Amino acid sequence: MADIDHEKKLAALEAVKYVKSGMKVGLGTGSTANLMIQELGRQIAEGLRITGIPSSEKTRKLAIDLGIPLISLEKADRIDLTIDGTDEFDPYMQLIKGGGGALLREKILAYNSDLVIIIADSQKQVKRLGTFKLPVETIPFATYKIEILLNKMGLQPKLRQKDGEHFITDEGNYILDLNIKTITNIPLLETTLKQIPGIVETGLFLDIADFIIVGKGKSTLTLKK
Amino acid sequence: MADIDHEKKLAALEAVKYVKSGMKVGLGTGSTANLMIQELGRQIAEGLRITGIPSSEKTRKLAIDLGIPLISLEKADRIDLTIDGTDEFDPYMQLIKGGGGALLREKILAYNSDLVIIIADSQKQVKRLGTFKLPVETIPFATYKIEILLNKMGLQPKLRQKDGEHFITDEGNYILDLNIKTITNIPLLETTLKQIPGIVETGLFLDIADFIIVGKGKSTLTLKK
Repeated sequence: MADIDHEKKLAALEAVKYVKSGMKVGLGTGSTANLMIQELGRQIAEGLRITGIPSSEKTRKLAIDLGIPLISLEKADRIDLTIDGTDEFDPYMQLIKGGGGALLREKILAYNSDLVIIIADSQKQVKRLGTFKLPVETIPFATYKIEILLNKMGLQPKLRQKDGEHFITDEGNYILDLNIKTITNIPLLETTLKQIPGIVETGLFLDIADFIIVGKGKSTLTLKK
Repeated sequence: MADIDHEKKLAALEAVKYVKSGMKVGLGTGSTANLMIQELGRQIAEGLRITGIPSSEKTRKLAIDLGIPLISLEKADRIDLTIDGTDEFDPYMQLIKGGGGALLREKILAYNSDLVIIIADSQKQVKRLGTFKLPVETIPFATYKIEILLNKMGLQPKLRQKDGEHFITDEGNYILDLNIKTITNIPLLETTLKQIPGIVETGLFLDIADFIIVGKGKSTLTLKK
């Protein structure tokens, strides 16, 4: 196992220690979240009783394969804990997520959870956000006009492609990946983007993570809010 | 024709005077917008050359029936003019729209138009917004949690129903109708609502209308920004 995969695994195992029987757990999406879900599946086979709320169709399928009982978000009176990966985090525990295209449901789950634990390998840590492109989810009807506007704002939007076609989210929307390297006021960027009609959500997760568990070499480091 | 219908018709006819051959025209949705679309159809039969961009599937069908040439928003390099109805307008030309459920595309069209003309009968005028319920469009996945949150905020959300089922928008989302009568800072409400993950758009059209043409009795009155 490559170092980076080992770090992901260490972070995933550490996060699962916070999961107790009886909890309703939001399940993230992506390669690091998958390791966490696999560990939950293993522990459920050994007697752990939890209910999962998946953040994507991919995660739903994986959880079902692993025998993790699921409920929909409507049926969950509360979410005790959500565990999810990230594409980037900065020293202030601010995140860019959405590389896998599940940012909308991930953000809804995190926003509605009592505790949000983010798991990451050490390469996800950055001094300031923006090495990773910022994904924003857009209504197809408006996407072309939004591209023109964001281009004027210097954000160099690129419409995400998959297999030669436009990438489509679970909600049937498009993703624009933005270059935010030159942006200094990230909270203002978030507010500005969300005011634009047709932008459904952004991959900026600001003040949402309670803990970030980072795999570093052979151990983990936990950042707390 | 009832007085109110006559006022709608007068406003619609007055608005169509701003439409010139060669223009790309955003076409609103609803009973007043329909009168405007019918007049455009009549003038096209007499030689007017325009291209329409519909704000809903209903409007698309009506426009096609009337022989109005249509293009999609992507193909329109710009929108010269959008004409649409409203559910309410206040003395500051702020609007509540979305009674017909097309608020998302209507807002996208208006936001991207060089000129926005709103047409209304005199009963749509209010001293302050909130007699009409404020529609907000929500992602189904998040709607139940958003209802709980908006209830805590005192906004008394009601999930819109149609024919005994949840009303579904053209984008596949739900509508929550909110009671905003007690809200004094409407711009702050707009920003707050749009920060909530899963709220796609609201029916608040703030600083978007350039003209409001109101049918009053046997004449029209035009408010300008």
